[in-house]
Amino acid sequence: MKRSFIREILEYINGDTISFAGGLPDETLFPAEKIRVAFLEVLKRPESLQYCNSSGYKPLKKMIADIYNRRGFKTTSENILITSGSQQALDIISRFFQGKNIIVERPSYLGAINSFILNKMFIKYIDIDSRGVNPQELYNLSKSSDLAYLIPDFHNPTGVTTSVIQREKIADICEQHRLYLIEDAPYSELYFEKPFPPISAMIKKQSFHLSSFSKLLAPALRVGWIRADKALLDPLIAYKEAMDLHTNSLSQQAICYFLNRVGEFDEHLAQLRKGYSKKMEYFCKNLDEFLPTFNYLRPSGGMFVYGKFKGVDTRKLLSKCLKEGVIFVPGAEFGGRDDEIRFNFTHSSFEDIEKGVKKIAKILY
Amino acid sequence: MKRSFIREILEYINGDTISFAGGLPDETLFPAEKIRVAFLEVLKRPESLQYCNSSGYKPLKKMIADIYNRRGFKTTSENILITSGSQQALDIISRFFQGKNIIVERPSYLGAINSFILNKMFIKYIDIDSRGVNPQELYNLSKSSDLAYLIPDFHNPTGVTTSVIQREKIADICEQHRLYLIEDAPYSELYFEKPFPPISAMIKKQSFHLSSFSKLLAPALRVGWIRADKALLDPLIAYKEAMDLHTNSLSQQAICYFLNRVGEFDEHLAQLRKGYSKKMEYFCKNLDEFLPTFNYLRPSGGMFVYGKFKGVDTRKLLSKCLKEGVIFVPGAEFGGRDDEIRFNFTHSSFEDIEKGVKKIAKILY
Repeated sequence: MKRSFIREILEYINGDTISFAGGLPDETLFPAEKIRVAFLEVLKRPESLQYCNSSGYKPLKKMIADIYNRRGFKTTSENILITSGSQQALDIISRFFQGKNIIVERPSYLGAINSFILNKMFIKYIDIDSRGVNPQELYNLSKSSDLAYLIPDFHNPTGVTTSVIQREKIADICEQHRLYLIEDAPYSELYFEKPFPPISAMIKKQSFHLSSFSKLLAPALRVGWIRADKALLDPLIAYKEAMDLHTNSLSQQAICYFLNRVGEFDEHLAQLRKGYSKKMEYFCKNLDEFLPTFNYLRPSGGMFVYGKFKGVDTRKLLSKCLKEGVIFVPGAEFGGRDDEIRFNFTHSSFEDIEKGVKKIAKILY
Repeated sequence: MKRSFIREILEYINGDTISFAGGLPDETLFPAEKIRVAFLEVLKRPESLQYCNSSGYKPLKKMIADIYNRRGFKTTSENILITSGSQQALDIISRFFQGKNIIVERPSYLGAINSFILNKMFIKYIDIDSRGVNPQELYNLSKSSDLAYLIPDFHNPTGVTTSVIQREKIADICEQHRLYLIEDAPYSELYFEKPFPPISAMIKKQSFHLSSFSKLLAPALRVGWIRADKALLDPLIAYKEAMDLHTNSLSQQAICYFLNRVGEFDEHLAQLRKGYSKKMEYFCKNLDEFLPTFNYLRPSGGMFVYGKFKGVDTRKLLSKCLKEGVIFVPGAEFGGRDDEIRFNFTHSSFEDIEKGVKKIAKILY
């Protein structure tokens, strides 16, 4: 199995490299002090250091269920399985569906594809355009497939958001062909203007809705979850148990403490949306100014700008850029075309965004 | 797949139940305040909340390597892969060796057996007696096997410690038949008198030595590791990455801070050994006094006393005990005989040990 290019590169870059590569959150927007207070409180009780339930810390499951309920997606604790990040959620589900046929957008998140490969699933790719996947194509593939893996909100890597009408069509197709939907939603709360309705809410009995606190609070916490119908979720708990007994319970308890502080989580999310929106604007302004031949889609949320330098081999471009201390991910790494690129706009400072884009311009032109 | 009896029961017992069931550490011996200080320090730096390397936090890998080196088992950071507890270490390895033939002691740790089943391995059981596995039997099975899974120190569930002579014979057999050894060593540091030499050190190129901080510091940290030859370890990193990207890095950094405080870890381990040794003595004293028909082996470390009530169906006994508020694990759950029992002696207070043993006596006699 191939290692993730991004994660391999993460091991080799040094502190001076300007990275538009990984999907790293902005460190200056971590609610670091509040997380610190949360751990401090949790660790006052020695029992907090003991083993915990395989399905997750009960109060946290309840709180996550409440988040769904507030959005009108009826959910109880029994619909929630806490995982060690969203990546493990993908692994658990694809392990359960080992060897099945799965429809995947092209390009798509490499970590998911790796998970499907590791679990010997048969991947059928469906091209994604600026409105999401084409319903007719999805319909055609559905007949001979068992699952579909989609990232409808601020897609990774393309930044595309599937329209509401398209979502309804997708739900219909899933229902009609008894297709299980894995809806990966790590960026859904990172909208710049408005949130979008999850497809899973339209097909509750055959959907897995995945999310995580990695992008909303901090990656180091390694807490993600699966929201699914109880009948779908129960067999996955036995897998989770055999895989790592349970997710880090200190993180789970600390998140619980944080979410319990009325208003704090909402306030933090509002700051995050505002901060990321500003960074996206600034990144695009720099692209327009210094890299005018980069043809891209302006995202309405999330962490990525995706586009192309027509006719340029972006892998070769990357090798040159690496030497000059600026990196990004070539679209081909995600199954995209050879002249495409994914830029992450959240991690670098405003200063580094300008510096990095200018460096690429100098190499390219 | 069957869920672990112990972990399922953990979800249903209430606070008043006296539990000799799970392998739970003594909460009063957690270095809770020191762990709290460690998290406090780590969380001062917002960067501590970011993503980390898949193979683990580098300074922690170095420290674990040093622990091996101090014991004369030559090791570098490149021999260490940090996992989300030892359970994940088992899962990663058995996933890599999916479908292979593995020799497993009978009885053995249920979490490992579940991991092997999940990964479609073919299990060949070998009975364990008071000296460990029989080398001749191991030799016979080796010819048609790929791996062996052993817990040589203070075995779970039986408490048996494999003698040094037997260890050498086992290493020879592994070498002769190119058998990979998975040496599970979570209790090895919990010796009452002296430590035992790891078998892995005698066959470095074909062994995986597993351990974790769950029993040495606290389970909630969910930090374990695999020590193996670099050539064996490298392919496992790609698996680890696809499984959960990386282990909780706050825990990894906090453990690092703790281990960095000269002498503190050794001092803590010394206290733990003393505390557990005392509890074992007290548990055995109560067994001898109130349950004289329980025929057991006195362990020289670890967390368990194993033995039998000749002719008694211990599953039936457990149902009665559950109602009276005291629990243990029937040996049959681990593949042992119907009249066998595993008692955990570390988790309950001295008071509860006496109360619990007396309750069982009242039900039994």
